[in-house]
Parts: sequence; structure tokens; C-alpha cells
Amino acid sequence: MSESETASQNRKFEIEFEPVGRRAVTGAGSTLLSAAQEVGVQLVAVCGGIGICGSCRVRCMEGSLAPTEPEEEVEFTAEELSDGWRLACRARALSDVKLDIPSTSLATAQRLQLEGATTSDSSEPSVTAYQVEVEPPGLYDLRPDWERVEAALFQEQVMPRASSVHVVQHVCDRMREMSWKGRVIVRGERGAEEIVTVLPTDVPMLGLAFDIGTTKIAGYLVDLDTLQTVSRAGVVNPQIAFGEDVVSRIACANRERRLETQLRSRLAEALNELARQLTTGSGNAATRVVDAVVVGNTAMHHFFAGLSVRQLGEAPYVPVTCSSLSEPARDLGLDLSPGTTVYLPPNIAGYVGSDHVSALLAGDILSREGRVVVLDIGTNTEISLKIADRLISCSCASGPAFEGAHIQDGMRALPGAIEHVRLSGGALHVQTVDSDRPVGICGSGILDVVASMLEAGIIDRRGRFYATHPRVRSRDGELEFLLVPAEAAGHGRDIVVTSKDVVEIQLAKGAVRAGIEILCSTAGIKSSEIDTLVVAGAFGTYLDAKSAMTVGMFPRLSEDRIEQIGNAAGTGAIRMLCSASERRKAQLIAERAEYVELTTHPDFADVFTDRLFFELVRNQGVDSDARTRDVSGANARAAATDQRPSTEMQ
Amino acid sequence: MSESETASQNRKFEIEFEPVGRRAVTGAGSTLLSAAQEVGVQLVAVCGGIGICGSCRVRCMEGSLAPTEPEEEVEFTAEELSDGWRLACRARALSDVKLDIPSTSLATAQRLQLEGATTSDSSEPSVTAYQVEVEPPGLYDLRPDWERVEAALFQEQVMPRASSVHVVQHVCDRMREMSWKGRVIVRGERGAEEIVTVLPTDVPMLGLAFDIGTTKIAGYLVDLDTLQTVSRAGVVNPQIAFGEDVVSRIACANRERRLETQLRSRLAEALNELARQLTTGSGNAATRVVDAVVVGNTAMHHFFAGLSVRQLGEAPYVPVTCSSLSEPARDLGLDLSPGTTVYLPPNIAGYVGSDHVSALLAGDILSREGRVVVLDIGTNTEISLKIADRLISCSCASGPAFEGAHIQDGMRALPGAIEHVRLSGGALHVQTVDSDRPVGICGSGILDVVASMLEAGIIDRRGRFYATHPRVRSRDGELEFLLVPAEAAGHGRDIVVTSKDVVEIQLAKGAVRAGIEILCSTAGIKSSEIDTLVVAGAFGTYLDAKSAMTVGMFPRLSEDRIEQIGNAAGTGAIRMLCSASERRKAQLIAERAEYVELTTHPDFADVFTDRLFFELVRNQGVDSDARTRDVSGANARAAATDQRPSTEMQ
Repeated sequence: MSESETASQNRKFEIEFEPVGRRAVTGAGSTLLSAAQEVGVQLVAVCGGIGICGSCRVRCMEGSLAPTEPEEEVEFTAEELSDGWRLACRARALSDVKLDIPSTSLATAQRLQLEGATTSDSSEPSVTAYQVEVEPPGLYDLRPDWERVEAALFQEQVMPRASSVHVVQHVCDRMREMSWKGRVIVRGERGAEEIVTVLPTDVPMLGLAFDIGTTKIAGYLVDLDTLQTVSRAGVVNPQIAFGEDVVSRIACANRERRLETQLRSRLAEALNELARQLTTGSGNAATRVVDAVVVGNTAMHHFFAGLSVRQLGEAPYVPVTCSSLSEPARDLGLDLSPGTTVYLPPNIAGYVGSDHVSALLAGDILSREGRVVVLDIGTNTEISLKIADRLISCSCASGPAFEGAHIQDGMRALPGAIEHVRLSGGALHVQTVDSDRPVGICGSGILDVVASMLEAGIIDRRGRFYATHPRVRSRDGELEFLLVPAEAAGHGRDIVVTSKDVVEIQLAKGAVRAGIEILCSTAGIKSSEIDTLVVAGAFGTYLDAKSAMTVGMFPRLSEDRIEQIGNAAGTGAIRMLCSASERRKAQLIAERAEYVELTTHPDFADVFTDRLFFELVRNQGVDSDARTRDVSGANARAAATDQRPSTEMQ
Repeated sequence: MSESETASQNRKFEIEFEPVGRRAVTGAGSTLLSAAQEVGVQLVAVCGGIGICGSCRVRCMEGSLAPTEPEEEVEFTAEELSDGWRLACRARALSDVKLDIPSTSLATAQRLQLEGATTSDSSEPSVTAYQVEVEPPGLYDLRPDWERVEAALFQEQVMPRASSVHVVQHVCDRMREMSWKGRVIVRGERGAEEIVTVLPTDVPMLGLAFDIGTTKIAGYLVDLDTLQTVSRAGVVNPQIAFGEDVVSRIACANRERRLETQLRSRLAEALNELARQLTTGSGNAATRVVDAVVVGNTAMHHFFAGLSVRQLGEAPYVPVTCSSLSEPARDLGLDLSPGTTVYLPPNIAGYVGSDHVSALLAGDILSREGRVVVLDIGTNTEISLKIADRLISCSCASGPAFEGAHIQDGMRALPGAIEHVRLSGGALHVQTVDSDRPVGICGSGILDVVASMLEAGIIDRRGRFYATHPRVRSRDGELEFLLVPAEAAGHGRDIVVTSKDVVEIQLAKGAVRAGIEILCSTAGIKSSEIDTLVVAGAFGTYLDAKSAMTVGMFPRLSEDRIEQIGNAAGTGAIRMLCSASERRKAQLIAERAEYVELTTHPDFADVFTDRLFFELVRNQGVDSDARTRDVSGANARAAATDQRPSTEMQ
């Protein structure tokens, strides 16, 4: 070590992590990873920071780093290295540096925190507050209470109408309680205003955004004065007791009126509970909520809005309505202020709901250049392609495999769920939720496993297992791959991937890919020509984009063309809460969307069958037509090297 | 009898009765009364047609009648006779004649029938029907149900918005049931339309008008295609179980939340029951009701609308709101079509409600010339004076005496209630409801009795009884007047009028008159200068205007200046149901009205005390200042002649 090197090792440098916006001060001897860990920047490090999993990729934007290490030269192409790409677990600073962390390198929790930055300063909510002071009635001023409030607003050039007699009563009661002084909250555009409620002078006006997923409901509380998200929370959708997926819940509702009523009321209860959590948790009250936005898939939308889901259960799956709705909260069973309305953005079709519209909004779809695909992967996957002035949308039944269902050792992304798997130098590394001992595999984990098996040659392009692989064994006549042996597992049982599991993943990824291909062919482009692939939603946040390309769910694109934008539906809902103009954009998106029905599309069956197969493995280039090439040689070689015991697990 | 007279007796003449619009063909020997009775024109004839009660007054407009008989010369002034006034029980036709029957001469039932003629041909209801036929969805036409209906209406240049998601669901359900064909009912003005419901092609759109009185609720079913009133019905206001008058019900509601809820729900139930009666009774269903108008006093308005009545129970009696409201029927607890809204016209003040606005509308108050007073007498009496561009309104607590309450033998206008009393030639004649044997006295009866007692000199101007009158006796130290002896009564007990009863009438008439006087002095006129006195409401329909003048409740005016317009509040409600422009007129009336609060008016106490006394009796001229003249001589003379036994009583 030269003198200058020693000197630089003693020096302190500032490491700036973007877009997280945190800074660490570190000695030159520390890796960027440990610097990140010190200030709570949660980089993914599947291998534990030993340089072999390639998950902690960062890009150096400013400053200088120590020369690349051998692991980095394996991980990156020469071009990527010259672009500044490094592994955080290997690289050390030689000066103050500024790093850009791709969302794929951030742990999920932190990725989701980035959602906060959703509103611009020019946002104008749909509600406005007016500070008023009203003359109390007396023996010689007999004007009714409501007309007094109207007169006070008239001085502010606002001439609101009474949206409902409940509101009239509520506002008058509150005005008397508050000695005729308060913040009158008004909704709507100039000339068509309606009074929502009245708040005490010093109380903020709040808004709620909900994203009703089939499995989970996310809620966000926003201060509509500052447009800051005050708190967020999630609950399991209680409808899950009536059926895991949308189709079984629709069937349930259609079987019995009583069940339909329960499905509706359980949903409203969950939203009320979430609203209570969010408001009381932040020292507020639900009565301060003066506006709300709710997004969800069309079935959740219909359940919540009180619309019949009957037609969503039978071809041609036509919804009752796709129009946006503004309904009094009380009519939807929500215990908010009596005048609060809930905005439900438009849907696109029976299986492309307002949550997708909201994700498209969050993905700024209308203002993007080039060929942009936005997809939200779930039991049902919604995909849209924006190209010039066209916006083409479809929906495909990708099944519940990515939610851990129909997978032998599958589970949701709960503690102990294997969420990431890396094959490195023949060894498998697994990362679990909360770093608990592994007990099962969640969606992103199973995707990684299948990609790794494919890369290691454990399965062929048809998904068939190579029975001779040492970790492949036969049980009850079916082949399975031993992912985690019993002794390493949290529950003391082997965690395996069966050939049936692989078929489930093939069905799922085949459906998603077929959807992408049909949209591209509808627009007259190849999927390899996609400029940007925006991946939204929970699973889309967790998944490893490289694995998704390896298994062929995504077309092969260079990584910088892939964006994982987290819970975009929630982000879009917050935006619509904070800005009336975002609601108009959502309207535009839904109006612009051309819906392509895949179930009756002449090419779908063929494309889907085609896409059930895996593509050529270890071909880093964009070559989607190479999927017929024989990869058995590579597979055999990979299988042969996979001898290392899985001691590095956990 | 000359030959020509004999010839004319054999001839047949046509008698036309206006405004009833019926014709009778009669021989010259018959009286006009018997001609009327033959064709069902119900003239009042308290004395049974013997020419002494003067209640069957008619006016001959065309044709010639036999010369006047002595009874007519007693009844009418020379001027009246030259104007064509005759008694129908005496006069006989000498040619075809056309008669005008003043409403005071018509039995109540027939007076009320005249309410039908309420709408002009140019009326445009607030709802419009569009016949549409919609393409059903198919595999290649995936538009949602609602958007299909919207598209069909767009072809009619209507772009309605969804008023509520309930309506969206209802309309879509019905369209499917009716194979995508039907009459879509749309509400609101061009450019701001909302869909109400959809009806089968051949089904009329119906409207309901309700007048919620403190004692009785009247309902009217109107065919909004033809604008004809299809049926009408009334029920007792079930709130009566919680208190007879408005004040006691307000106190009840304010005592306990539970009672307030019951007061509200009982009212809604009564309206629902009435709606069922009206619709099923005419072979319709409540779901065909696409519009509704509800009027009532401010307390009933607040109870029905779900507004708090708290403030109506404490000074300064300020309502929550006086604004007109349009509320979804379901929010008001009415089981009508999900999209039906209920229009509640504006109120004027805490004790001048939308029923009075409706009565003013029915009385065409805005278009009348001269000094017009409209009054609606009840436990609470609302009075308005129109003079040039001013409309001045007040309300006075006239007490329940005219509803038969607080009167020893008082009762409501049920069968057997004495509704008219005439003193003629010293004998008393009574007319009862349904001509049953008398069992009590209703409001119009007690007014007649007191007027008769005053005319007969049985009481003095202070209301004191002349103890020497043969029908005046003392019981428990209190003087009472024997109206019907036990042997003539339906229940076998004496029917009497006590000195306390007379005081009640004095309080009631004094309050009404004081209200009229204060309004006149506010406008700078004398009450004798009133050009038209319009008497609305149930009691106002039954009362004898001459008696009302005799006791001094009304100022002395020539009879042709008094109009009894029946249940004007109901008529006004029907008009507002049939015509959007009538709703705008109601709005104008409420905006124009200046409210005068009598309880704090500096002159009220004096004027009221003054008006407790009776005025000079037997002075047919307009001489309201003559009330101090000594009438004891006349009284004594009248008392002396009142010897005839009451054999002519029923």
C-alpha cells in the first residue's frame, strides 16, 4: 500500500445516495455498501456482501472510486463499467462521491418510501378552505344558520350549493359549536361549488387515498394543506375469506344475495378500520377527512361502489360502468365527514380497472416519449402500450403463482419467505423477508428460482427437469428440486420446487408475455422495440427484472429500459387526491385507452402456447427469436458445476 | 196564474252552474237549489232550503229568474239584488240561466274538488321522458351497460350525468330486464341533466305531491305525462301521538334523541303508506314515481328533511335553513325509485313554512293586483300581505280552538261534528258533517256559534254571557250556552258552549286579526282597504266568512273580496310538481317575503289585547272603529225573540 493510499484511507469522504437523498461520511477503507448500511440506505445484498450475487449494483455519478475488483469485472460488461456501474459491496471511495441507486438495488421497503414524492407544487386539490366568521343570530337578525354561512362565503366570492341536507345540518351544528368561526371546506370548480364541512380554525384538511387490491388494501392519509403524505398503512382485504381471487368472489356474490352484501360490507369495514388507523394514528379524526380517492380493479371497484358484479363473472365480462364516479362517502358505507365525497376514477374494461388507470397516471404515461409498456402483474395482469397517440390495453389471467399460491412451498411475502435467489459460481444464495430462516417461497423468489434453474440447466426450455442433477429427486413419481434442505429451513422441512410449480410459472409468465406480444403486434412493433418497460404493483416491485427476462416473462431489454415504480396505483391515487388536474388526466387516459380482449383475440392461443416455453439461457443479447436453439450443452455444464453445498444460505 | 205563467212553468230550462261546470235541465217550477241537487252540485243549505239561513247564495250571470221573494229581500241589500244575488232555495228560472256559485256556498267536498284545475297547458315538469333502444353487449361490443344508455341518450342530444351509483345500477338492471328498450326519465335543465330511472315503454311517469300538516297529511298522485291528478288521499299525521301541536313535538324531539328519531321515521312511514295507497290504488307502483314535491310548515319540513328542530323551540326561532332542497328520496326515507329526488320549496321563517309559500303560489300572489292578504288559519296562522312589489309575512299563535281542541264539546271535522250554525228568526239551525246527529262542534261550527251568540246578544263585546238568556245556564259557577239539548244529540248529552270556549275563540280570532292589522300598518294601509282576502287551508275552507267578520277575526269587507281557495298548499305543491317554472316562482316568493316577527313587534301586544274584544254586531257596513258602541239594547231584543224551540235541529 503506497503512502498516498494510506493517507486516503485515513481521510473521510461524503457519499451521497440518490434518489434516496441521504449522505454518509465514511473512511476510504469502507465499502459503499457498509456506508449505505450506516445511514439506513437499504441496498439489496443477497449474498451478504461477498461480491457474488450482483444485487447491490450502483452507478457512480460524481467522484472517484478505487479500481474495480474481479467480481465487478465478472458482473458488468466493459460498457457498463465505463458508464460507472459498480457493486456497492466491493467499491470504495477515493473522494466525495455521488451514487445513483437503481430501484432494483433498493430493498422493497425503501423503494416504496420513494412513493412520497408524488405531487408537484402546482397541485390544486379538489377542495379549498375558506376562513369565515359569521354573525350569530339575534332577535333582530333572524336569518337561518345555513344562509348565514352562505352569506359569509359570498364575501369570498363563493356561492356554494347545499350538496345534501345532511351537510347543511352538520355545517350548522359545527358552526354553532365553534362559535360561528371556522374553516369552511368547499369542493368543486368555480361556479359549481358545494360545501363539504367546516373545521376548526387550526385544523388541517385531510384526504384519504385507498388502493383496494384483491389481496391487500393500502391506505394513505394526506394533509391537503401541505400536500404531504402523513401516514400510510395496509390491511389484508377481508374478502379473502370468501375466495382468494376475484373470480371466486364474483361467483360467491352471484350465488347468494346475503354473501354479496357481506362482501360489500366487509370491504367498507376494512376501509373504515384503515381510515381510523391512519387518522387516530396521526393524532387526527376521521371527521377531518374532506376528500377521498379509491382505486381498485373493476371487481373491487364494483363491490365497493355497490354495483353488481354479476356481469363480470360471465362473458363478455362487461362492467356496469367504466365512468368515473363521485359518491357521498356515507352512501359507500364510509364513516367520514357527512359531506365528503369519494372519487372513483374511471375503469377501462371489466378486467382493467381504475387501479391500472391510476398506475398509468403515476407512470406519467401520457407525457412519455417512445414505446412505453406499463404492466401490473398479479393474478390478473393488466398491460398497456403507449405508442404515439395510441394507448392500447389488455388484461391476462396470469394466475396466482406470483402471489405464492398453487406453488407447493409457496407463500405470501411474509417473514421467512424466500424473496430472492441467486445462483453464483454454482452455489444458490437465498434472501428472505426480514432475514428470517426460510419457511417458503414468495412470488419474486419462485421467479428467481426458476430463472436460476434455467441458467443452471436444471430445467430445459420446455420446463422439464434434468433428473440426473444432484438436487433433483423424484417424489411420488414427480421430479422436484431441493431449494433449502430441512436442516436450514425455519420449520425443519425441505423447501422444494416441483415440476408442477415450474408449469405454474410457465403458465403465468406465458400469459404475461403473450399479452405484451399481442399489444405490440396490435401496434405493429416488435416487443424488442419497447423503449421503456414500466413495472408497477407489489410483485412488480419485488421481482428481479433479470429473472423476469431470463424466464421470458419480459422481452429481453437492456436493464436501463426497465423501471420498477412500486405501488403505482397508490401513488396515482394520492396524486388524484392532491390535484384536480390529475383527475382530468385519469379521465383522458381512460378515454384514450383502446381495449383489446385477449380471450377472443385470434392470435392469443398461439402466442400463449409459444410463450409457455422458456427462451435461450445465458444469451445476454436481445434475441427473442433464439428460443428454439438447443441449450442442453449449456444446461449440462451448468448442472455439473452446481456441486457446492448450500452453506451460504441464510 | 196567468196563461203565460202556466206555459212557462211547463217549459224546461237549462241551468248552468259555474265554476263547477255542470248543467241541469229543470222545469220552471223548481228552485235552483233542487236543480243543483239533481245534478250533484252541493250547495250549502243549513236551514234545509226554507229560505232563512242565507247559506245558498248564488249569483245570476245570464238569463232571467222569477221575481225576488221576501226572504231574499231580507238577506240581500238592494245593491246585491241588482247585482244578481239570489238565494238558490227561493229563486226559480224563467229562461236558461248561468249561475256563479261563490265558494262559500259550496259544500266543502265540492270546494276541494275544484283544486284539480291547477295546471296550465304550458306546464313543463322537471322531468322528461326519452324513448330509447340500446344495442345489447356482445363479444365485439364491450361497452359497459351505463355507457350504452348514455350513448342512446346522446342521440337525443341529452348528456346526463350519473346522479348516483344506485341509479346507475338500477337503470342498467332495468334496461337488461326490459331487453334494452324503455323510457329513460331525465331530470334537470338542458346541460345539467341527470338520469332518474327507466320505465317500460307503455308506463306513465308519475309524480307525488305531499302537504304535511301538523294534523293531517294530504297526498296527490299526478300523471306527469298528462299532468292530471290521478288520485288523492289523506292520513292523520302519526306524530300526533307525540304531541298535538308543533311546539309540543319540538319539545318532545329535543327531550330525547330516540324520540326525535321516532318522530322522523313515523312521518316517513306515513308518507310511504300514503304513496302506496295512491299508487297501488290507481293500479300503479311506487317505482314509477319519478318526481316528488313535499310542502309543510317549517317544523314538519325540518322533521321530514332530517334537520334539527332544536332552534325552532327556542327564541329567536331561527330555522336551520330556509333554502329550497332537492334530496334523493331514499335519503329522506321514501321508498320510491332510487333516482327520484324530492323537491322541498323554500321556507320563509321558523313559523312560516313552505306550505305557506305553496299557498301563496296557488293564490297567484305575485300576479295579483291591489292589496291582497293570504292567510292560512291553524294552530299557527300564517298571513302574508302583497302590496305593490312588497310581500310581508308573519305568523301568529292562534291556538288549537279552530281544530276543536281546548273547546269543551270541541272535536275535529268528523261525522256528527256541527260545522255550521245559523241563527234565523231567533231559531238556531245546525248542519253536521255527513248530516249525522250532532256529537260535538268543529272549528267552523264554534266560529258560527260565537258569531250567532253575538248577533243574538247572548254575549257582549267582551265575551261575557247574558245570564238571563233562557239558553244560558250556570254549571259549577261557570255560564254556558245550550247549543243542542241531550235529546237531539247523537250521544245523548247536552252540547254546550262555555264562557271559557268563548275566551278561546277570542284569543284565536284576536291573534289572527292582530296579525292582519300589524301587516297592514307595516305597509301603511288600513285593514278595511284590503282588496282581496284569500283564505287558504282546511279550516279556511270550512269557515263561514260572514261569521269570521262578525266575530272580528276578519276585517269587515264586502263578501266578493273574500276568496276561499281550499287546500292551497296542496294545490301549490301539485303545480310545482307539474312545472319547473312554478318552482322558480316559489323561489321568488320566498326571496321577496319580508318577515315580521310579531313576538318582538312593539305594537303587537296592544293590538292583540284590543282585538280580543268583539266588534259591533248587526252593522253591515265597514266600520271597524265602531266596536266601542253599546249594543246591549240590540242584544236584549235578540235574546227576547229567541223563544222558538230547536225542533229544526237535525
